[in-house]
Amino acid sequence: MENLKVKKLPKATAKRLPLYLRYLKVLNESEIVRIKSKDFAQITQVPSATIRRDFSYLGELGRSGYGYDVPYLVEVFSRLLESNEEKRIALCGFGNLGKALANNNFRRNENLKIVAVFDTNPEIIGQTINGYYVHGMDELKQVIKEEGITVAISTVPSKYSKEAVNAIIETGITAILNFAPNRVKVPKTVHMQYIDLTTELQTLIFFDSLQTKAEAVKA
Amino acid sequence: MENLKVKKLPKATAKRLPLYLRYLKVLNESEIVRIKSKDFAQITQVPSATIRRDFSYLGELGRSGYGYDVPYLVEVFSRLLESNEEKRIALCGFGNLGKALANNNFRRNENLKIVAVFDTNPEIIGQTINGYYVHGMDELKQVIKEEGITVAISTVPSKYSKEAVNAIIETGITAILNFAPNRVKVPKTVHMQYIDLTTELQTLIFFDSLQTKAEAVKA
Repeated sequence: MENLKVKKLPKATAKRLPLYLRYLKVLNESEIVRIKSKDFAQITQVPSATIRRDFSYLGELGRSGYGYDVPYLVEVFSRLLESNEEKRIALCGFGNLGKALANNNFRRNENLKIVAVFDTNPEIIGQTINGYYVHGMDELKQVIKEEGITVAISTVPSKYSKEAVNAIIETGITAILNFAPNRVKVPKTVHMQYIDLTTELQTLIFFDSLQTKAEAVKA
Repeated sequence: MENLKVKKLPKATAKRLPLYLRYLKVLNESEIVRIKSKDFAQITQVPSATIRRDFSYLGELGRSGYGYDVPYLVEVFSRLLESNEEKRIALCGFGNLGKALANNNFRRNENLKIVAVFDTNPEIIGQTINGYYVHGMDELKQVIKEEGITVAISTVPSKYSKEAVNAIIETGITAILNFAPNRVKVPKTVHMQYIDLTTELQTLIFFDSLQTKAEAVKA
């Protein structure tokens, strides 16, 4: 029953769940046990109507005029996002971006852990850099199996991204975060999330210039 | 007239424009002058119905059965995204992530240029690192004015992010890309885009585990 509901969750809603969970945890730690959508909107900067709609997909989580039960929401959302389960991550590509990710290591979520680092540069393979032993990409399959890794992040540049992604898929991993924006064809069973920083920046500039133009028209 | 249309553009559509533009440019360079939504869907991995709907917001760009005129789309989309106009960017925070951004410097779009780098670490201020002279944050206002900078990127860690964002806003900049996920209250005139890598990763794992569960049920 619960599974069915979750499967129908709009992608936009699902994308906000981690954000919601994050702030709910902060509230919970501050021993705030109840929150109204209007107040939660203030904290998250998400419109309260959106919050109410998002939460409604998840069943009866609150009552009108009473607000939402914070510890209960934390429990439900954590279960949904499985953030109580440790996820072991392989990082492919150990340049500046790879180092930044390894160094930060998702410390906001103690269950997300980069546990192995891979690169193709012979100058760094076999060395320990910033506390990480750098494996060659040819060791990928073996290390992933040994380490119980289920998620991969690729910071491999666009030019070699397809090759890296194919090597990752061959190990049986189905969740990949890819920092190279070129779309790579993957089997339907594989979930690929792209982080495309140029597009994010262009979109930001696009919206900003829309407003500037609108103001110029008004003036 | 055109401005009015663009202002009504759904955010989800606007977000896809840079992606569309990117692939249209590739087609254009390959001298492909016409493309059907079905074929463009293959390339972009965006459903053809979504493409047709997105394009319909932008006016009469194609004809049924004939496809879209590639050079014309490139022209229209480029103008919309202003990627023909140089944007000068300030980068605040020059750790591993800052270095990765500066090193890559959005080379996919030659009009996006990180032209000045700032940090608060006295050990690197005044030095030239990876080809970038590192300014102190106290020089922000002056350098932004001198360099004609209109966009800022902050890779300043969460703990100091608010302080950095406030300093950026004080210079008059209204477009900020922020890699610290903590929501910062900003005036309505300021556009802040967050890149929240932990949330992206959690969302990916969430969708991946939904499927794994669905398969377990089927089996």
